[in-house]
Amino acid sequence: MEPSPKPRLRATSYDVARLAGVSQSAVSRCFKPGASVSEKMRDKVMRAAKELHYQPNAIARGLITRRSNLVAVLVSSQMNFYYPEVLFQITDRFSKRGFRVLLFTINEEADVEDCLNQVWQYQADGVISASYLTIEQHKILEDRNIPVVMFNRYFDDYDTNSIWCDSVAATDVMIKHLTDFGHTQFGLLQGPEHSMVSAQRMKLVRHAIENHGGRIVAQARGTYRYESAAGATQSLMTNAAQPTAIIAANDMMAMGALDELRNVMGCSVPGDVSVVGYDGIGAARFASYELTTIRQPIGRMADAAVSMLVDRVEKPDLSHERRVLIGSFIQGTSTGPTPIQT
Amino acid sequence: MEPSPKPRLRATSYDVARLAGVSQSAVSRCFKPGASVSEKMRDKVMRAAKELHYQPNAIARGLITRRSNLVAVLVSSQMNFYYPEVLFQITDRFSKRGFRVLLFTINEEADVEDCLNQVWQYQADGVISASYLTIEQHKILEDRNIPVVMFNRYFDDYDTNSIWCDSVAATDVMIKHLTDFGHTQFGLLQGPEHSMVSAQRMKLVRHAIENHGGRIVAQARGTYRYESAAGATQSLMTNAAQPTAIIAANDMMAMGALDELRNVMGCSVPGDVSVVGYDGIGAARFASYELTTIRQPIGRMADAAVSMLVDRVEKPDLSHERRVLIGSFIQGTSTGPTPIQT
Repeated sequence: MEPSPKPRLRATSYDVARLAGVSQSAVSRCFKPGASVSEKMRDKVMRAAKELHYQPNAIARGLITRRSNLVAVLVSSQMNFYYPEVLFQITDRFSKRGFRVLLFTINEEADVEDCLNQVWQYQADGVISASYLTIEQHKILEDRNIPVVMFNRYFDDYDTNSIWCDSVAATDVMIKHLTDFGHTQFGLLQGPEHSMVSAQRMKLVRHAIENHGGRIVAQARGTYRYESAAGATQSLMTNAAQPTAIIAANDMMAMGALDELRNVMGCSVPGDVSVVGYDGIGAARFASYELTTIRQPIGRMADAAVSMLVDRVEKPDLSHERRVLIGSFIQGTSTGPTPIQT
Repeated sequence: MEPSPKPRLRATSYDVARLAGVSQSAVSRCFKPGASVSEKMRDKVMRAAKELHYQPNAIARGLITRRSNLVAVLVSSQMNFYYPEVLFQITDRFSKRGFRVLLFTINEEADVEDCLNQVWQYQADGVISASYLTIEQHKILEDRNIPVVMFNRYFDDYDTNSIWCDSVAATDVMIKHLTDFGHTQFGLLQGPEHSMVSAQRMKLVRHAIENHGGRIVAQARGTYRYESAAGATQSLMTNAAQPTAIIAANDMMAMGALDELRNVMGCSVPGDVSVVGYDGIGAARFASYELTTIRQPIGRMADAAVSMLVDRVEKPDLSHERRVLIGSFIQGTSTGPTPIQT
């Protein structure tokens, strides 16, 4: 049998003042960084505060300062291998800057509306969106003077703060790496139709393939998830003109394609088919995969996103900014010379 | 050039009342679920609210109701493949119950103290801890009437709310599966020394091995991470008495061991050595691994943790509870008959 708990009553600065035998404003001063208080006063107040479990109330303070020190981070629950790495790095860095992360997982578009209401109700100081957000939704936030930083996405025709990884040069190097190996027939394993990231990556891929004299013989789509690559790979490989190199829009699908080729279709990778991805996630380095891929500098992207948002919380009149970090080509063992054509 | 933003001023219910030409208490009623208001009144108020971007302020309401509808979720940033699945499921479920998740990533013990201060300052209604927490720290929270649910951990000698996955029977089935295949010489790939989860899993493993007439010939430790398994596997396999089956404390290390055996040491898995893990993470099902493992029912554990915490936020005088869900044995292709002994 346990004693029934006390009601959850928080001590206020007035309670501390009463117990310490000082004024409420003296208590306030003791908790304000840099305010001048005598050693003796601070001692008395801190002893009373400790006894009453008193802590200045961040929420009440937020109502006065109009700062909550809360930031909302929106992630899509779909992309379950890439975004955890991003999320943990962002959360760590916000914590070091004195901000707390309110986490929102977005499963479907309807969740965004609810999320925006909550961002407003909790007076989040800003938003980092690594999920789907329309221009309209973006405007609503900025109209309310809540700064937004878009992570790994931007709008073509609307200005916003964004962190973006530019893979133009790396994609060119990757395709050249494949054409140097003799590949001319390419298969594209694209992401979902509405995905901006997939569309932009595939645009670069198409351009580079054309540049280096290759051609696209087959195309298929997956959901970005490992499991979705199996069917897409089957469809690419049963095409009349068979690709000798598959370009996937992310590493997870490249890993799925590689496993489907090796373990289900009995192909050798890279003996029969080469496979490449995008992202440079940790799992792509596992010895069973060792993917050739384009690595995003996630740590530096997280740093940049946090700084960009904190700057705008502190100086609301800063204009928009785009920061572009450069992805790098990583040569793994999933690519090699094209087989002799029959 | 952009116009300089307006100061971030939120409309209050008084502003809405003024614009709508009604009393403040009428505005309040319009936003209170179930309160009776005329159609006409609601129309007027909602139009004014929309124009002013007014939303009832969750934080101010929290100061009055003493409920913030915020819950803190503590995760260790180390275990980066198992916990994202858990975290996303928990966040989803809290969202459906009307709670928001404040995320804390714990890198080292020092982070816990800071996190507890923040939990208090933001008046979190409760805490789910999937990270390291001492009895002392746990007591501090409960003394302040903040309920805590421990996820995948508990204290031996201190009562608390906990969700736990019991793998006793499944471990027995797994070891019998191996001894039925003729394995008698086992190698343990344990987690970090302070890990409660690893210690408890290995205790079950030792017991089951003894039960089924096997013996432990070698032991090594990893960090739970994929990369840490390489060195540990080398140490297990260069032991005077070589194990024919390796039991890893989690799937990530089992995957690392499997890759080290196959790709570096040139062993066949399961031809030469069988490998098993714990957790049943998504990546363990990838065709390159297909691990034999013990699957935790993560979705049901997330459900249980969220319900247990919400119940205690709503009824603070509920006594502690332990809920134990049962792990299940999953047979993959990483285990097989023991090779003929030389």
